[in-house]
Amino acid sequence: MPNDTPSPEQVDAAAATRPPFARWLGATNDVTRRFLAAGRIPGLINIAGGLPAPELYPAAEVAELARRVIAQHPQDSLGYGPIEGLPELRDALAARFATPELRLGRENVLITTSGMQGLDLVGKALLEEGGLIAGQFPTYLGALDAWRPRCPNYRSLLFEGPDFDPAAAMAGAQFAYTVPNFSNPTGRLVDLPLRRALADAAHRTGVWLVEDDPYGALHYDGAPLPSLLALSGRRQPGRLYDGPVVYMSTLSKQIAPGLRIGWVIAAPAMIEALTMAKQGSDMCTSGVSQRLALAALESGLIERLRPTIVALYRERRDALCAALAEHLAEWFAWEVPVGGMFVWAVARDPALDTDRLFQAGLEAGVCVTPSSVFDPAGRNRRALRLNFTLNPPDRLAEGVRRLAAAVRALAKEA
Amino acid sequence: MPNDTPSPEQVDAAAATRPPFARWLGATNDVTRRFLAAGRIPGLINIAGGLPAPELYPAAEVAELARRVIAQHPQDSLGYGPIEGLPELRDALAARFATPELRLGRENVLITTSGMQGLDLVGKALLEEGGLIAGQFPTYLGALDAWRPRCPNYRSLLFEGPDFDPAAAMAGAQFAYTVPNFSNPTGRLVDLPLRRALADAAHRTGVWLVEDDPYGALHYDGAPLPSLLALSGRRQPGRLYDGPVVYMSTLSKQIAPGLRIGWVIAAPAMIEALTMAKQGSDMCTSGVSQRLALAALESGLIERLRPTIVALYRERRDALCAALAEHLAEWFAWEVPVGGMFVWAVARDPALDTDRLFQAGLEAGVCVTPSSVFDPAGRNRRALRLNFTLNPPDRLAEGVRRLAAAVRALAKEA
Repeated sequence: MPNDTPSPEQVDAAAATRPPFARWLGATNDVTRRFLAAGRIPGLINIAGGLPAPELYPAAEVAELARRVIAQHPQDSLGYGPIEGLPELRDALAARFATPELRLGRENVLITTSGMQGLDLVGKALLEEGGLIAGQFPTYLGALDAWRPRCPNYRSLLFEGPDFDPAAAMAGAQFAYTVPNFSNPTGRLVDLPLRRALADAAHRTGVWLVEDDPYGALHYDGAPLPSLLALSGRRQPGRLYDGPVVYMSTLSKQIAPGLRIGWVIAAPAMIEALTMAKQGSDMCTSGVSQRLALAALESGLIERLRPTIVALYRERRDALCAALAEHLAEWFAWEVPVGGMFVWAVARDPALDTDRLFQAGLEAGVCVTPSSVFDPAGRNRRALRLNFTLNPPDRLAEGVRRLAAAVRALAKEA
Repeated sequence: MPNDTPSPEQVDAAAATRPPFARWLGATNDVTRRFLAAGRIPGLINIAGGLPAPELYPAAEVAELARRVIAQHPQDSLGYGPIEGLPELRDALAARFATPELRLGRENVLITTSGMQGLDLVGKALLEEGGLIAGQFPTYLGALDAWRPRCPNYRSLLFEGPDFDPAAAMAGAQFAYTVPNFSNPTGRLVDLPLRRALADAAHRTGVWLVEDDPYGALHYDGAPLPSLLALSGRRQPGRLYDGPVVYMSTLSKQIAPGLRIGWVIAAPAMIEALTMAKQGSDMCTSGVSQRLALAALESGLIERLRPTIVALYRERRDALCAALAEHLAEWFAWEVPVGGMFVWAVARDPALDTDRLFQAGLEAGVCVTPSSVFDPAGRNRRALRLNFTLNPPDRLAEGVRRLAAAVRALAKEA
């Protein structure tokens, strides 16, 4: 233990100034806070956030399940649990994600306190200060938040164009980050050839490939595509999975975010590293939440809820897109997403500044998300992320009408 | 977005090697894992961990509370909440810790996912790579774990001796760390003059003073002493607290650790910085747990439980100390702690190596914690931390008998 304490003179010279906060805090966005502040404006229509429809939360069922699991499993629910998570829950998730070609055991699964914690732990386990991440851009704001304390550098996994070489884009990075199912913010579904190319590049380069999949269950049209994890597993059939894909998901969009239950499925060596990171982050995830999650899986609650969620969100997606077609087609272009929670609307006029439109929207009574927040450099100011899951069709239509009024007001100013 | 992708030749040259894990993982202890592994040895008596007595968990009451809060507050329980925590819970904690001399508002309170998360967030908000922490040593292993990703340097707050000058020991550090109530691992209660000196030094130097207080409620003899937070508040009476103390506590020892509810009370500027760090860590704490915590506070459950907890733990402390006096007084010296969960036993013979005794203990059927894990440099190998809260008196006595056998076996070897 070194004890190189300064002399009293040195102490007095230092005076009573607070030590500074860590540098990364100066680079942090306050978007989330602005959204929260905006949420308090009376009458505002919020199509900015990524919030589920609260009327879908199965409150009565979860309330009864909570009473039951705490009474039946007091030690698991109320005591300290293993860092890696409740063994039975890890087993249940391993069984749920295993396929004939993807062998998974408990040692492939870590329970996390929300999907966000999975991102935080990956950053802790892999990133040195200023490390390199190859990311799908525009990308999830929360992932940028999670890694900001390490002040990472980003290289774009530019999917477009015939010359795109995923292995070249990934080489030398600490890890690559993708949201193949209905990306936040673009709603994009990564197609099968590109999935194959990404999994192949991860195996070729050895680079960890983080597959963030919070929205996979929110599939409205067509058939689901195989995950990067499944594609990677096919390359080592019969062996316990130890490939480069680090798959993450959460119960937030399938049951309720308030449980804060997520999980990571990865090679045992990665699970071990993430476990060491979790030990110093929150020691273990809430036992009540883990037992609730297990009961929800075992009771079939997730499968019972899914058709209702999918039907409601599909209707809302269609309502938002219909309103956009009616009021904003002149100004914006978008694709109808086949899943997820968002429509990504790109301005036809490159001079339209969506940071300014965000402000104009607030004045017109609607809150949207400007594209700048999904770019670590903050430069992309040409698009909007619009959420369709929180509001019913009539509110979505009214929100789009207000947004159109804001666009017209902005255009007149220019 | 920079896109300096390497050429195909460069990719091939890199070959398929996995990017390394972050360096700090190489310096991580595996003590927690060894404890968990030890816990599976049949018949082993575990006096190593810091676990509550599980028979004290109020399972029936918490089960019923959980049912009620989820049914009555579905949005708070199951939805996303504010990053800072449920406003009503923040208000309740502000009211609980305020005194006539310490004015606290909601803006002074952050809800954390366990006390451990508070430590993680302080590290994120304050530490640059290799930053300096002035710490009370030996110190809480979990704090070392939380800050290890930043590879900090430590300076010891050596409390002993007439020449100890807290301001000199703290000057230049990012923050100072203390557990004034029944420190983990030593069980030490920091006395009032030293508390005054620490608070004074924090005001004089401006250095943030982290007061970690998970054990304050576990007070067995005498009257509680004022917290560093309260002493700091007295220096600015009537003003909303904005001093240098960063107070942390948890429900883990007062109700149950499985809820993973902790809190930080500090200056609003610190709460804001910690909130930004929490945004990228887990976004918000479980709504079910927060609503449960609020109901437990409001229903008086904590106050009803306390006499039972205190009486049981006092009896166990006395049982452990009696067994030590009977079987180990020849080899070890200790003080009877007036609170907390631990007895700190220091070997009379400086040649007795407690890392080796840990192993010998396992072979004799008892698991204890060697002092090396509470020292960032791992050098202190002369003491043991013994827990008295988990086991009933007869098991504690048997554990100490086994430990004495292990000491004698080790002495014979030497």
